Formats: sequence, structure tokens, C-alpha cells
Amino acid sequence: MRVLGIDPGLANTGFGIIDCSHGKFSLAGYGVIETDSTLSHEMRLLALYGRLSDVIKEFKPDCAEMETLYFSRNTSSAMAVAEAKGVITLCLAQAGIPLCFYTPNQIKYSVTGTKTADKRTVQNCVKLLLGLKEVPSPDHAADALAGAITCINSGDIAG
Amino acid sequence: MRVLGIDPGLANTGFGIIDCSHGKFSLAGYGVIETDSTLSHEMRLLALYGRLSDVIKEFKPDCAEMETLYFSRNTSSAMAVAEAKGVITLCLAQAGIPLCFYTPNQIKYSVTGTKTADKRTVQNCVKLLLGLKEVPSPDHAADALAGAITCINSGDIAG
Repeated sequence: MRVLGIDPGLANTGFGIIDCSHGKFSLAGYGVIETDSTLSHEMRLLALYGRLSDVIKEFKPDCAEMETLYFSRNTSSAMAVAEAKGVITLCLAQAGIPLCFYTPNQIKYSVTGTKTADKRTVQNCVKLLLGLKEVPSPDHAADALAGAITCINSGDIAG
Repeated sequence: MRVLGIDPGLANTGFGIIDCSHGKFSLAGYGVIETDSTLSHEMRLLALYGRLSDVIKEFKPDCAEMETLYFSRNTSSAMAVAEAKGVITLCLAQAGIPLCFYTPNQIKYSVTGTKTADKRTVQNCVKLLLGLKEVPSPDHAADALAGAITCINSGDIAG
């Protein structure tokens, strides 16, 4: 079972792909889709869609995970993330890849065992769980991997 | 010049197509794309994308207009609209159709001559400007037509 975790954004969308077999995790890949801030809003969404399509074709995930989005005080930023999320959701639906959602607290709890863990603790646990030498970088990719681990741990998919 | 106005939503996306030639408006079509509330969120975005693609193929607009979205207190609803807006923006970008945005006040002013007009006044002005016998129904379609009129009136496109 291969899971694609996604940390959505218009400027930076983190992704992380994890294989799970017989209860063991292994890292298949991770990265960040960046869109050029000099492009128009429409062209940035188009670029995000194109790059995510390439990631799906390359890694062929069985299912995907995206963090449930909450509104912050920065509504303009939240709006852009929500639009990106719509495009990502469409891209996955067109590819027939089931998508599940988890809240930030669910992800923290699943990866570290506590809902109050800070970002650095979550990232260190991702490193340990995947047997990596370093914390995956940048943060968006590490967050996406934490989401993918949560999806596998939840048992919502067959491992 | 053919303009497609769009009033975005996950449940209901209004659309209205207006031709403008030598300063005269004529109505080409209007309607609402509804998505079944029993479908999953992903399938609703997929359905919206598919239906909008059909509208674009049928009417072949030269450009499109969408109302600038503001956050209301109902953040859950605003989130769904923003996701729909992302999918609509992508669909138009893939078809190579330029997109412009206007605020609700710009639309009211353009269609009625005042920024304080109520919804019914805007809709009646749409009826008058397009020489229709009735106010276009439902409201989402009338709002989309008001946006398309604003786009033409603005002079942002060549008429």
C-alpha cells in the first residue's frame, strides 16, 4: 500500500510518499511543488495541477491524505490555500485516488503519541519512524509525510 | 466578444454568457451547475469541473469573470466556495480563457449606477440591460450575468 501525503498551499505544496507492507514503513519519495510568485494566480493553480499530476504518474499512490484546513486570521492566505486544496482534490479525483483527511491534532497524536507535540517533535518522529538520517526538508514535505503516516496508522486503508 | 460570468459555489455555480458587439448586449445563455449533495466532496468538485468544461465547449467564451470572494462568518461554507473557485479557475486556465475579478460593489455600481443597490435592483437591471421579459432565474444565474455585464462595462476587454 502506497500513501501520498499532501500539505497544500498555493506557493508551496509539500508531498511525501510512504509504502507500508506488513506494518513496516518505507519512504518512497518526498518534495515540494513550488509555484512562481511572478505568475498570475490562474497560472500558479495550473502549474500546481500539472506538477501534482506528474507526481501521481511517477509514484502511482493507492490513496492520498490531506490535512484538514482551518481558517487562520490571515483570510487572504487561507483563501489561496483553499483554492489550491480544491485543485489538488480535483487532480486526485480525476486519477481515481481515494482521499482522506485528518486534523492537525490527529496527525500530532498519531505520529508522536500526544496532541500537544510541537512541530519539531513531529518532524523528529517522522525521521525515526521512517528510519531516516535527517529530518526531511523542507517543513512542507515533512508535514506531508506525517500526514501519510497518520493515514496508514489510522487503519482507514488496508496496509 | 463573448463573456462568461460565473457565480461560484460547491452546491450551485451560476453561469451567464453575454455577447457584446458595437456596445450592444445580447444574451447567449445562462444556467446553474448543481452538484448532488449526496456525493462526496471530491466527486462534487469533479462534477463541477466536468459540467463547466461542457459549458465552455458549448459557448466558447472569449473571457470569463468571477466575483471576488470575501469571507463570511460561515467559514465552512466559505471554504467550500473557495475550493470550487480553485477548480473553476483551473478549468478556465486549461481552456486558455482569460479571467477577471470584480468586487460585489463594483458589480452593483456597474449594473445599477450605485454601490448600495439591493439584490433585486441588480437583477432587475440585468433584465433591462439584456432586454429580457423576466428576471433570469435562479439568483445564481442572474448574479453571474451581472458579473459578465460588469466585465464588458469595465472596458477591461475589447468589446
